[in-house]
Parts: sequence; structure tokens; C-alpha cells
Amino acid sequence: MKFIHTADWHLGKLVHGVYMTEDQKQVIKELIDILIEEQPDALVIAGDLYDRSVPPTDAVNLLNDTLHTINVDMNIPIVAISGNHDSSERLSFGASWYRKSNLYMTGKWLPNQQPVEIKGVRFHPVPFSDPGPIREVLQQKDLTSHHDAMKAVVEKIVEKMDLSVPNVFVGHAFVLGGSTSDSERTLSVGGSGCVGGELFLPFTYTALGHLHSPDAIKHDTIHYSGSLMKYSFSEAKQRKIVKVVEINEEGAVTVTEKPLKAERDMREIKGYLQELMDEEFYRTQKRDDFLKITLLDDGALIDPMNQLRQIYPNVLHLERKLALRDQSKRTTASLDAREGKTDIDLFKEFYDQVTTSDWSLQKENKLTTVLQHVRNKEDQS
Amino acid sequence: MKFIHTADWHLGKLVHGVYMTEDQKQVIKELIDILIEEQPDALVIAGDLYDRSVPPTDAVNLLNDTLHTINVDMNIPIVAISGNHDSSERLSFGASWYRKSNLYMTGKWLPNQQPVEIKGVRFHPVPFSDPGPIREVLQQKDLTSHHDAMKAVVEKIVEKMDLSVPNVFVGHAFVLGGSTSDSERTLSVGGSGCVGGELFLPFTYTALGHLHSPDAIKHDTIHYSGSLMKYSFSEAKQRKIVKVVEINEEGAVTVTEKPLKAERDMREIKGYLQELMDEEFYRTQKRDDFLKITLLDDGALIDPMNQLRQIYPNVLHLERKLALRDQSKRTTASLDAREGKTDIDLFKEFYDQVTTSDWSLQKENKLTTVLQHVRNKEDQS
Repeated sequence: MKFIHTADWHLGKLVHGVYMTEDQKQVIKELIDILIEEQPDALVIAGDLYDRSVPPTDAVNLLNDTLHTINVDMNIPIVAISGNHDSSERLSFGASWYRKSNLYMTGKWLPNQQPVEIKGVRFHPVPFSDPGPIREVLQQKDLTSHHDAMKAVVEKIVEKMDLSVPNVFVGHAFVLGGSTSDSERTLSVGGSGCVGGELFLPFTYTALGHLHSPDAIKHDTIHYSGSLMKYSFSEAKQRKIVKVVEINEEGAVTVTEKPLKAERDMREIKGYLQELMDEEFYRTQKRDDFLKITLLDDGALIDPMNQLRQIYPNVLHLERKLALRDQSKRTTASLDAREGKTDIDLFKEFYDQVTTSDWSLQKENKLTTVLQHVRNKEDQS
Repeated sequence: MKFIHTADWHLGKLVHGVYMTEDQKQVIKELIDILIEEQPDALVIAGDLYDRSVPPTDAVNLLNDTLHTINVDMNIPIVAISGNHDSSERLSFGASWYRKSNLYMTGKWLPNQQPVEIKGVRFHPVPFSDPGPIREVLQQKDLTSHHDAMKAVVEKIVEKMDLSVPNVFVGHAFVLGGSTSDSERTLSVGGSGCVGGELFLPFTYTALGHLHSPDAIKHDTIHYSGSLMKYSFSEAKQRKIVKVVEINEEGAVTVTEKPLKAERDMREIKGYLQELMDEEFYRTQKRDDFLKITLLDDGALIDPMNQLRQIYPNVLHLERKLALRDQSKRTTASLDAREGKTDIDLFKEFYDQVTTSDWSLQKENKLTTVLQHVRNKEDQS
């Protein structure tokens, strides 16, 4: 039995003010190509299908079309759960109709929930939940941490689980480690939102969502697939993939990967402004990538973001090495240097640094008037 | 063939700040009782299932449960369209899965749309739409009014329609008249959001939503069902019903009604405050109804809303006959009466009217200080 494990699609995501829907559409096409090639028996989506509880209608249409293509047109069963970004109610609306087409959309875990059986493998979908609702549904007052709540859920599932067949846990949580079952670590984790990976050892495979890196856990049977694509610059160096999970008749698991490649990558570049604006350099670059640029220049620069965007239209974030260095100095030397200077003096220094024109008496008079006006206002209030 | 025609459920509606979800739940139970009794071949919901494009999750759950009971548990086919209050994208998410269970949810009309056939009757669902999208989809630039857009849609449907079987139009629009086909009237209607009823004469029955009164149109075959319950005081005197539509083998239509009765009615009462607060009176009343109260008292009253709510917890709106009368006077006589009076004089008059305590020199001094403080602030800005 073979299934594809993916998660964290975040449809409708806005990165630095830019909607990623078109990029998501393209990566989903790649996913569908993988499904055509692999012909799996199921697709598992481990939460965060949408980026927010009320996604934009473009994202609603994209999810509808995607699930339709995979589930109805290609006839592939889908096991999906809601993540912390989804609205469990809105996402699971209509779930009982979907089941008839082997689309299993779960928004809320309930103790009497039956596993989803596909080709002899039993899937146990457990959507993201705060401890509160689990505490209520199990009537166990002591479930205050995510770890304890998940432990109680897993115990409830394992209680009724047939261990003679392969069992797959599908979850959306912040799971730590998993390679050891160091109880001290688990205790220290208890209070936070983390869950100890050892909980999932009874399962043949655990398909997780929440962390965006496919390497967030290194374990034979406990896996994050990572997100559909890069959603922040902290993910710039992560590879993006889906996991292909095969369970043979003896219940042994093999996990391989298939890469996903967004047409517009998200990456960081560093350099001097003049260098980055040089055709020799930029013609070697994929200029429409989503970029975080760090400028190494020391001096003042006139609106570098605007200059850079003429060449790199999708600069999302700009950093100056200089600015950072100044910031650290300021706390010691530069504060002293300011002492005894008038506001006019300080402004003159600033003006010299950020413009190329000369300071004049006329400008000084104008500034004096403005400062006086501001001070009068301050006195009144 | 028999079907029930309903519309304008407005789940998630907030009336004067009060969520109606519990009341809606109760009326929907009545609807389900009617379905059990009537055993119809279909249920038609002619738009505005929700009150807004992003309804509260309670309303999402209520619609999910209701459709599930009717469609899955009772196995009754449902033909539903989105109204102007619904988000067509969000409501029709999953529509292709629903179709397999004979739940036909249409969010957008398309020219190649096939009718829904149930027991030999063909339903033509046309969700609410502004002229814009219809203009685009039909590539007819001249469709600027609702009437023209609807005319084009109907023509497109009638073109391919088999007139030898009964055809039911399901729409959500502001339809006028319908008993005559007076082209002048139609023209005068053109510019507004209205649609001439004569457009629907080719259909065996036209099931409309949008207007909340079941009597909005008096016509043999063109009908509004009206809303599920009263949603404003302008509907206080309307009856609330569903229509039971039977089409016999010759294609003849019979329409009867079944009443819906919200447990808490929405109604108006008028009287003097003392009278309404008198036990003799209020024990004859259903005190938890949603009320608009018009007080006939002439003099000043101290916080009458608060007093009334001790007895009638769901007073939603309070009107004073006096206040209205004063308002009309003010433009003529009372403005003159104010001339020459100081702010202190005017405040004293107001104070005497709304309190039972006496005016004092101490109070006058306090007021003078406050007024001076306010005036100083005004001078400064």
C-alpha cells in the first residue's frame, strides 16, 4: 500500500503583502504530476490546508478544484485534517457527503471516531486541537498541556487499535525528537505547546504537519512532510518535498521523497548595491524570485529598495549590514556623541547622511519653525 | 411530484444585536416535521441560506446538520442556490461531491448548466447575480440592468428547454408583479435592481427567494416562499410559511402552505409605560417575544428601556410617540424658544425633565467649571 504524505499548504497565504495563490497553484500542479506518476492508494494532508480560518475566495476555489481533481477525477482517496490555521468547522462542512467519495475531512477528534481504512491500512486522523476541547470531550480535568492531551488521545486510539494491521497516525502538532524516549525531556516539554515524539511509537507511520521542514524530525516512522512551498525567509534553505510512504505486507515502511519546486524561489542574496544592480551580475539571477536582500554598503543610499525593485520586482525584505552595526554602537559610543548637540545639529547630521544636497540657512529657518510649532502643540496638551 | 419551496433562512442573523441561531434551530425543526409529514420528492431553498458571506461557526454547524438530516438521513434531494447574502464560492465549495447524494448546491449560473431532474421535473437553479458576471459569461455588453441580465439568462435556458416536461425555475431576485406583461412597466423597472415577473411565464413554477413575504407576488405559478422567520419589525405582521408545490402528470400546479411558527414571535406593542408594566396586562403577554414597543406617554420617563426589560427581556426597539412629536415641533417653535437662553438655563430645563432631584447652586457651579474647561480646550485647538 502506497500513499503520499503532504501538509501545510497554507492556501491563501500572504507573504510580505504578496498573495502566493498563483505560486501555490503551480506547485499543486507538480503535486498532481507526482500523483499521476506514483499512482498512490491515498493522499494524506496533515493540516493547514488554508492559511487562515476565513481564506480569500481564490483560495477556496483552488482547494475545491484541487480536491476535485485528485479525489473525483483521479479517484484517489484523501485523508485530511484541519491544522491550527484552519477553521475546523468551516473546513469540515460537508464532511459526511465527502466520505461517500473517500474524501475523509476531519475537523474535530472524537473518542468514538472510527479509523479510515484504505487497502488494509488504518488511518487515525487527529486534527490540531488545544488541550481545552480534548479535556472536555474526554472529561479529564488534568489535561492542561498539549503533550498530556495528545497522550490521552493516543491512548484512547491505541486501546481499540488492531495491531495486526498497519496503523497510520495523521496529526498536526509541534512534535519534538521522537528518536529517544527521554522522559526528562518530555517533562520539560510538558508546559509548552510541544508533544513528545515517543507517543507515536505504536503506529506503523506517523504523518505530521505543522513544522515546515521535512527534516524537523529524524525518525524511521515519525515524519513531517514539510510545507508545500517556502513561506518565510527562515525556510529559504529548506528543500520542499512530499513523502512517498510504502507499507509492505509485513508492515515494513519505506519512505522516499519527491521534490516540489516553486517557479519563483524564496531566497536571500547579499552584496553591495552597485554590484547587485550590475547587469553582469543580475543576468545570472532568476530576477523574479522572492528575495531578501542584505546590502553590505557602508555609506548612505538613496531609496535602495526602489532601485532594487527595478531589477528584482519581488524584493520582499531589505536589510542593511550598516544599520545593524550602527544599532549596536549606538548603545555605547554614539549616545554620548549626541550629548550637548541641539536638535538642529542632529537633524543637519542626519540630512547630510541621507541626501546629496547642501544644508542652507533657509532650510534651517524652516526647520526651526516646524520644531517651534511642534513644541507649542506639546505644551498645550 | 411534490416539493417544498422555502428561502431566506439567513442563518447566523443578528437582529438588533441578538443572534437568532437558537430560534432558527427551532423553526428548522418545524420544517423537518413538515418534511416528515409531507414526504416530498425534493426541497427547494431559493437563496440566502446564510445571512452573510462569512457566517459565524454556529450557523455553519446548523446548516451542515440541517442539510445532513434532510438529505442524508431522510434521503430527500435538495436544490439550493446562493442568494445575495451568501458567498457563492464558500457556499458551493464541495458541490460536486454533494451532487452524488442529490444535494444540488449552485453558486454560479453557467450557460452550459444542465437542469436538475427529479422525478420527471426539471429544476433550473439560477443563483443571485449582479448583471456584471452574467454580462461576462454571456459576452453581451448591453446587459446593464438586473432585468436585462435575467432576461438573457431565461432566454438561454428556454432555448434548450424541453417544454413537454414540467420545468421549475429557482431564483433569487427582486421580482415585480408577474400577473401582467406590461412592457412599459418593465422598462421603468429596467434601471433598478428589479426584474419583471413576465420573464418567468415559460416555467411551470418559479420558486423565488429574496423578498421576505410569501405574498410579495400574487401569481398562479410565480411564488416567493418568504423567509424562515421574521427578521425585522417591518415583517411583524407577515405570516411565515413554506409552500407545498404539487405538479400532476398533466403539468398542472397546486400550491398550498404550511405555517412556521417561531417560539419567540417578533411583534409591536403600544401603550403607556405604567400600563405595560402592570401585571394585569403583562401576564396576558408572551413576555420573551422580540418586541418593538411604542410608548404613548407625554412626559419625561426615567430609563424606560431598562424598566421594560425587567418584564420583557427581549425589547429590541423602543419608540416614544412624544419624541417624534417634539422632533417635528423643534424645527419651528421650539428652536425659537431656545433663543436668548444660556447653556446653564438649557441644561437646567433638561435636568428638570429627566431627573427627580432639585437643581442647586452647587450643581450650577460644577456645571460652570465643566463648561469653562470645555471652552478652553476648544479655544486651543
